[in-house]
Amino acid sequence: MGLTYKGSGVDADLGDALVDRIGARAKKTLGPGVVSGIGGFASLFSLKDFMREAKKKGRSLESMDDPLIVAGTDGVGTKLKLAFAMNKHDTVGIDLVAMCVNDVLTTGAAPLFFLDYFGTGKLDVDVAAAVIGGVATGCERGRCALVGGETAELPGLYQPGEYDLAGFAVGVVDRAQLIDGRSAVKGDVLIGVASSGLHSNGYSLARKALLEVAQHPLDMPFAGRTLGDALIEPTILYTDHIDALLAEVRPRALAHITGGGIPGNLPRVLPNGLEAVLHRSAWQRSPLFDLLAKSGIAEDEMDRTFNMGLGLIAVVSAADADRALKALGPTASRVGELVAAKDASAEATARIDP
Amino acid sequence: MGLTYKGSGVDADLGDALVDRIGARAKKTLGPGVVSGIGGFASLFSLKDFMREAKKKGRSLESMDDPLIVAGTDGVGTKLKLAFAMNKHDTVGIDLVAMCVNDVLTTGAAPLFFLDYFGTGKLDVDVAAAVIGGVATGCERGRCALVGGETAELPGLYQPGEYDLAGFAVGVVDRAQLIDGRSAVKGDVLIGVASSGLHSNGYSLARKALLEVAQHPLDMPFAGRTLGDALIEPTILYTDHIDALLAEVRPRALAHITGGGIPGNLPRVLPNGLEAVLHRSAWQRSPLFDLLAKSGIAEDEMDRTFNMGLGLIAVVSAADADRALKALGPTASRVGELVAAKDASAEATARIDP
Repeated sequence: MGLTYKGSGVDADLGDALVDRIGARAKKTLGPGVVSGIGGFASLFSLKDFMREAKKKGRSLESMDDPLIVAGTDGVGTKLKLAFAMNKHDTVGIDLVAMCVNDVLTTGAAPLFFLDYFGTGKLDVDVAAAVIGGVATGCERGRCALVGGETAELPGLYQPGEYDLAGFAVGVVDRAQLIDGRSAVKGDVLIGVASSGLHSNGYSLARKALLEVAQHPLDMPFAGRTLGDALIEPTILYTDHIDALLAEVRPRALAHITGGGIPGNLPRVLPNGLEAVLHRSAWQRSPLFDLLAKSGIAEDEMDRTFNMGLGLIAVVSAADADRALKALGPTASRVGELVAAKDASAEATARIDP
Repeated sequence: MGLTYKGSGVDADLGDALVDRIGARAKKTLGPGVVSGIGGFASLFSLKDFMREAKKKGRSLESMDDPLIVAGTDGVGTKLKLAFAMNKHDTVGIDLVAMCVNDVLTTGAAPLFFLDYFGTGKLDVDVAAAVIGGVATGCERGRCALVGGETAELPGLYQPGEYDLAGFAVGVVDRAQLIDGRSAVKGDVLIGVASSGLHSNGYSLARKALLEVAQHPLDMPFAGRTLGDALIEPTILYTDHIDALLAEVRPRALAHITGGGIPGNLPRVLPNGLEAVLHRSAWQRSPLFDLLAKSGIAEDEMDRTFNMGLGLIAVVSAADADRALKALGPTASRVGELVAAKDASAEATARIDP
């Protein structure tokens, strides 16, 4: 009996068992355009098939003159540590898809497909199947196909029971329809869409403040559920919101509020010489943000770290503001406007006024 | 002085410093088609621009009737542990790109672009810049653009000094030119192209056998260099080989030999009822494989775990074999052939005869 791969900590049979478990779940996410998904060396997707189907639904993708492939990658951060602590693994996959797909959506692109990477020390098929089931749920919510992924067993790299996740989303937009913020001007209106909590950013600070310093237990009753449930609430996928918006209004810019908060993200899609001014009282935020403020994090540090209750901000012309607000639905609010910066050549900034 | 994100272990300024360090390096990888790379919410790539440029070079991408987007994701596995042990971080990025791009190439696709995910406990800008520099080198070798990535600082998830990597490659192939193995028949010839060593698979077993059981030191002189250098030798990118092959011959199938070895990978692209028979003496293998055999791993376990000296196998008609061999260059050999299996409906298999 010689040395074996299994004996070194990598069990290829477990990997096969996982593929069997998740195959049917992934299949449910497949839509028009998918030529081949999980199983081959690579995943194949036909733009032509997708566009043909999209045209039937009344969109004009088939007539794209210069289709741009839009790609985004992200992880879930230390929100994973909450999943480990709560032994709840079926929602972080939703976060993973949302983090990537929401980025892709900010360009005006239709999401097409998604691939995931799951790295762990020792493969637990039940945990992995729950995680990847969450990825499939995220793909359904975001309306993209889960066409492939990699499950890697890396003995000794991860602590027992832990894992990391990375995701990759691909979408398509015609260059003529690209949303890139270049046309934003002073006087434009900011419409914010509510987040469901922290989404997938700032968890190292939130965990330290709430669980270590304030020593709140995860099962502490909080706002009608437990603190753990409020913290692990999955990130919203804004596919439907943006679809509804694009059907009514052409936004000047769309910003996904992630790490760096509103000041770190909104200016990324604004031209030089503009300042985004938000009014803190203009939107409701989850009570989680108040608990965080009470736990000893200064408001400006919170602004730079968390989404502060807005997961998506649309910049629209003042004339379009009411229609945009209506299209984005009941969780959207008018939260501010663009003003001219003192220095017309300075990089754009964003601030939240009291 | 309240709680800060930096105090919780995440230093956003370091992330910005890293982006500054790698920006110029990534820029060098950009080619036709890239509309926007690192910096925005998502990366944008124009198929039309790419195809226009490709046509100038004599390829007919612009006339694609049904362009298929081809995507692959992978990691580097515990080859990373070698990088940690040797404190050598500038080559695992090449492995990452190679693992993904070689998968994409097996469909006949031209690689377009690449994104990476780098997860670590505490960001060391020098280490991360070395790793992502390697990713850029891999993109240059594979001829794809490094258009984006995510660097995630996850305090407590990784051990000090360690990290994980995931990669994502996208290519394009016209459906009429897709290579998928469907046309492979008995009598077809197998042409193998040499690997540079273990590439990026089987390192948990190799490390256990060579470093733990046999207790060879990494600085042991071995085959004109050190054992560590032989083990960390980066994976070959087969972009140039496959380009040269496609200019001469239309292969029936292409297989990238990764985890599962030749028996686990070659049958993935063969129709039912076929058996691939390879002759072990038909190719030279790196002395590393002999050292592994001597360390107590049975030959059939090695066959199922390592690439055994062949990183790529092309299946071509017997009539095309000589031209394919010449196109693939001096590291290619005729290594076997396809024969009829006893059961014509059975899934394809592959074996290595003595």
